[in-house]
Amino acid sequence: MNSLKEKYGEWGIILGATEGVGKAIAEKIAKGGMNVILVGRREEKLKELGAEIEKTYQVKSKVIRADFSLSNCTDAIFEATKDLDMGFMSYVACLHSFGKLQDTDWEKHEQMINVNIITFLKCFYHYMGIFAKQDRGLILNISSLTGVTSSPYNAQYGAGKAYIKKLTEAVGYEAEKTNVDVMVATLGSTITPSWLQNQPGGEAGEAAIKAAMTTEDTIDEIFDNIGKVHSLVVGERNRNSVKHWQTDMTADEAAAYMGRFYE
Amino acid sequence: MNSLKEKYGEWGIILGATEGVGKAIAEKIAKGGMNVILVGRREEKLKELGAEIEKTYQVKSKVIRADFSLSNCTDAIFEATKDLDMGFMSYVACLHSFGKLQDTDWEKHEQMINVNIITFLKCFYHYMGIFAKQDRGLILNISSLTGVTSSPYNAQYGAGKAYIKKLTEAVGYEAEKTNVDVMVATLGSTITPSWLQNQPGGEAGEAAIKAAMTTEDTIDEIFDNIGKVHSLVVGERNRNSVKHWQTDMTADEAAAYMGRFYE
Repeated sequence: MNSLKEKYGEWGIILGATEGVGKAIAEKIAKGGMNVILVGRREEKLKELGAEIEKTYQVKSKVIRADFSLSNCTDAIFEATKDLDMGFMSYVACLHSFGKLQDTDWEKHEQMINVNIITFLKCFYHYMGIFAKQDRGLILNISSLTGVTSSPYNAQYGAGKAYIKKLTEAVGYEAEKTNVDVMVATLGSTITPSWLQNQPGGEAGEAAIKAAMTTEDTIDEIFDNIGKVHSLVVGERNRNSVKHWQTDMTADEAAAYMGRFYE
Repeated sequence: MNSLKEKYGEWGIILGATEGVGKAIAEKIAKGGMNVILVGRREEKLKELGAEIEKTYQVKSKVIRADFSLSNCTDAIFEATKDLDMGFMSYVACLHSFGKLQDTDWEKHEQMINVNIITFLKCFYHYMGIFAKQDRGLILNISSLTGVTSSPYNAQYGAGKAYIKKLTEAVGYEAEKTNVDVMVATLGSTITPSWLQNQPGGEAGEAAIKAAMTTEDTIDEIFDNIGKVHSLVVGERNRNSVKHWQTDMTADEAAAYMGRFYE
């Protein structure tokens, strides 16, 4: 089951690998024979994950500590991977902040621009350049339903997720006649540690958990569709939601639907 | 016909006012009694426009020279408007660059991030803060159909336009129960000097011009819908296109449709 390594190369990098979807992606490519580079803020947790992955999947791992909200954070990342045979890049990191646009500190907005736009674009640009040159590689960027509806009281997050979605869709088309596979996966509620922390208790929480997807199902569906689809909304339920918003609702109605969750 | 001034305030600022849609917006709000602050790179052209507007509409004008691709350009803009009764802000500026993502110089990408994301957000945040505080004002941001489909070979532009669209839609909802009106207008082909320069000659060019909207029709439709709609696709033909892309096509097919124009 070394298919990913054979197809794309020795090493894969996951930006935002500590837990949840990023962690599951790291495990998936390790299962496919690739060595993993785990990038995030919590170095100790990443080292534990790396050791676990090495043991379970018989691959190598590296950990790079990086704060994606700092504008020069990519320097150390690119330096650390420059002599490796790179074949996979996944940008999972994201930052949100609840509140009206103008009530959120500018400093927080800058951090969101860095995590959701600039560091994302730098990583995409850098590894896409390498993959295009060697005509081999896989890009997997993560977007969210909030980028489809827009996201009142979390406006920058939703707008950043729309940016990631539209940029990756375009580059997916640009790379179509090459051996570089490019996908953006748009996720709805996915059961991860950080998502669980934000759920209410009692019946409402139970209902939310019942409607959400597991990370395992999410990752399996993504990897089943690589090479077939550039822009994938993951999960039948989420695809039906997008269809409903885009065919039966105006953009204002879709925004209101999402906005009411935070009121 | 001083309705805009009475409703929103004395002064309006247009970022990217030199020609085309920005110029037409400046004329429209001057017709509505507002004084205009014209911002852009070409100071001489803006001064001519300001003089023309003063004469035609009996309002005041100011010109601020600014390059939206420089990260500190907003300092001088905000300083110049700090003692004025502000009631209108429109961000029209945008920057594009044709080519595959990884084949475009990083310097150009940085300029696009500045014009399409950072300077946009700084202006939106700054004037939205003022308008929310005084509970009075109008925001009009300009997006494009390329932000709906995604835009292969012009990927950053389309992604930036999606960012502008989704951010403004969300803030439109956030401001719904206030006296601040927020709209994002999504435009298709609009006959402007810069658009005309990019059209082919002969029959193809003639057909493109026939299908495009005039700036006058565009601006009239926008201002007819202010206070009614936050997210407006301007023009029946463009609304039908969006409907078609979103109901009959996958995201990959919509990207391919747009991408084929540049091949």
